[in-house]
Amino acid sequence: MRRLELTGLEGLGEVVRGNSVGQLIHQACSRLGISLVEGDILVVAHKIVSKAEGRVSRLDEIEPSAQAVELSGPLNKDPRLLEVILGESRRIIKMGGGTIIVETHHGFICANAGVDLSNVGLGHVALLPQEPDRSAEEIREEVRQLSGVATGVIVSDSFGRPWRLGTTDVALGVAGLKPLRDDRGKNDGYNYELRAAVTAVADEIASAASLIMGKRNRVPVVLVRGCDVELEKGSARELLRPEEEDLFRKF
Amino acid sequence: MRRLELTGLEGLGEVVRGNSVGQLIHQACSRLGISLVEGDILVVAHKIVSKAEGRVSRLDEIEPSAQAVELSGPLNKDPRLLEVILGESRRIIKMGGGTIIVETHHGFICANAGVDLSNVGLGHVALLPQEPDRSAEEIREEVRQLSGVATGVIVSDSFGRPWRLGTTDVALGVAGLKPLRDDRGKNDGYNYELRAAVTAVADEIASAASLIMGKRNRVPVVLVRGCDVELEKGSARELLRPEEEDLFRKF
Repeated sequence: MRRLELTGLEGLGEVVRGNSVGQLIHQACSRLGISLVEGDILVVAHKIVSKAEGRVSRLDEIEPSAQAVELSGPLNKDPRLLEVILGESRRIIKMGGGTIIVETHHGFICANAGVDLSNVGLGHVALLPQEPDRSAEEIREEVRQLSGVATGVIVSDSFGRPWRLGTTDVALGVAGLKPLRDDRGKNDGYNYELRAAVTAVADEIASAASLIMGKRNRVPVVLVRGCDVELEKGSARELLRPEEEDLFRKF
Repeated sequence: MRRLELTGLEGLGEVVRGNSVGQLIHQACSRLGISLVEGDILVVAHKIVSKAEGRVSRLDEIEPSAQAVELSGPLNKDPRLLEVILGESRRIIKMGGGTIIVETHHGFICANAGVDLSNVGLGHVALLPQEPDRSAEEIREEVRQLSGVATGVIVSDSFGRPWRLGTTDVALGVAGLKPLRDDRGKNDGYNYELRAAVTAVADEIASAASLIMGKRNRVPVVLVRGCDVELEKGSARELLRPEEEDLFRKF
């Protein structure tokens, strides 16, 4: 029987700048009696990665630009928050109804450039990691050194999407796994050659982990065991649809 | 420790019109030695639901309309397939690069109105179930009668999305669970009142199940155990963003 098992690694405590996330994960595994094995994937909420990397700003230290002040009225947002959002953005994709959708410097298209006030302490905002693939690779390397096991690592965040309500978690950074599974050209068992058969497995793994993380559970890391993915070098950039192939970026 | 366990129910065999999907699931559980328990959620690939409900068309019985013939050139698609797609659509949202994104009669926005040539037999296409919530409710009721346990049921499909490559599975129909978890107004543990905190748990559960289903595994049903969702009456329509709140529908 095909099985998939997800376990929340709780009790990591408050993560602060300079912490080694890999070490915290290793300690949590020891405390919970979990031995990592080949093929395990660790999904890490970006929030603790951002905290460990110092990607947290204090709002009262932000001086909003004229553009941030101008947008703050129609968007009904704190101009200092908007200043941080604009600083993280390559361009604005769409605004309306109090929502600002941007393309971040990484190439992610999401609300607020991923800048977030929750789970970070009052008066503070967390930014996305600067290079989430590198963050994932560092965690993978730390865990490998401490445990001797090379796991896959996904750094995740909750993104909204057009047309459907509610967020689902996606992969911002990956290490040690291919984020897409491409079944095109393979046979479906009915002698039909599959065409539209590229699956965003890293995003699906992030979404699965989100079911345990929640927003209020303080479970920032989830161990996923039994996942049938290619454990090779990969990058979350592979998940980004090139602009010229995107029907919903050009207006 | 928070845990989530997913098990693929394989060996359902070829599903044909008139089959009771609930009965097939019950038989698979018996054969695999699985006893359902309260809180279990069954994720069912829409493909077998469509087959059981007779939502399969033979392409050689389709007479394409003038519009289908006209679109077939630029989209590089079989005009008969396009005829089926247009018949399932309320309107076309966007076309380009060989892709047609429509709004289905249900209100789903997706490529090809969910009409699909894979895993259905050469020369055939599977359509989405006509009322996926009702399909889910029927499966729930069949399973409940046979096993005595009221499970949650999700009928799923793989949808593409703007901006990111690869499909992720989403919920087309639900029964016995709330598809959205709304944490707005609750405290994040840092005395911050959560705002953007509505999670599409049904879509995340569908995505998690997709990791086991795959496109070629012939595992059309996945049992999800340990999921922290509200087991109340719900509808997948709750997942549809109202048009007037959607930044990416009006052009």
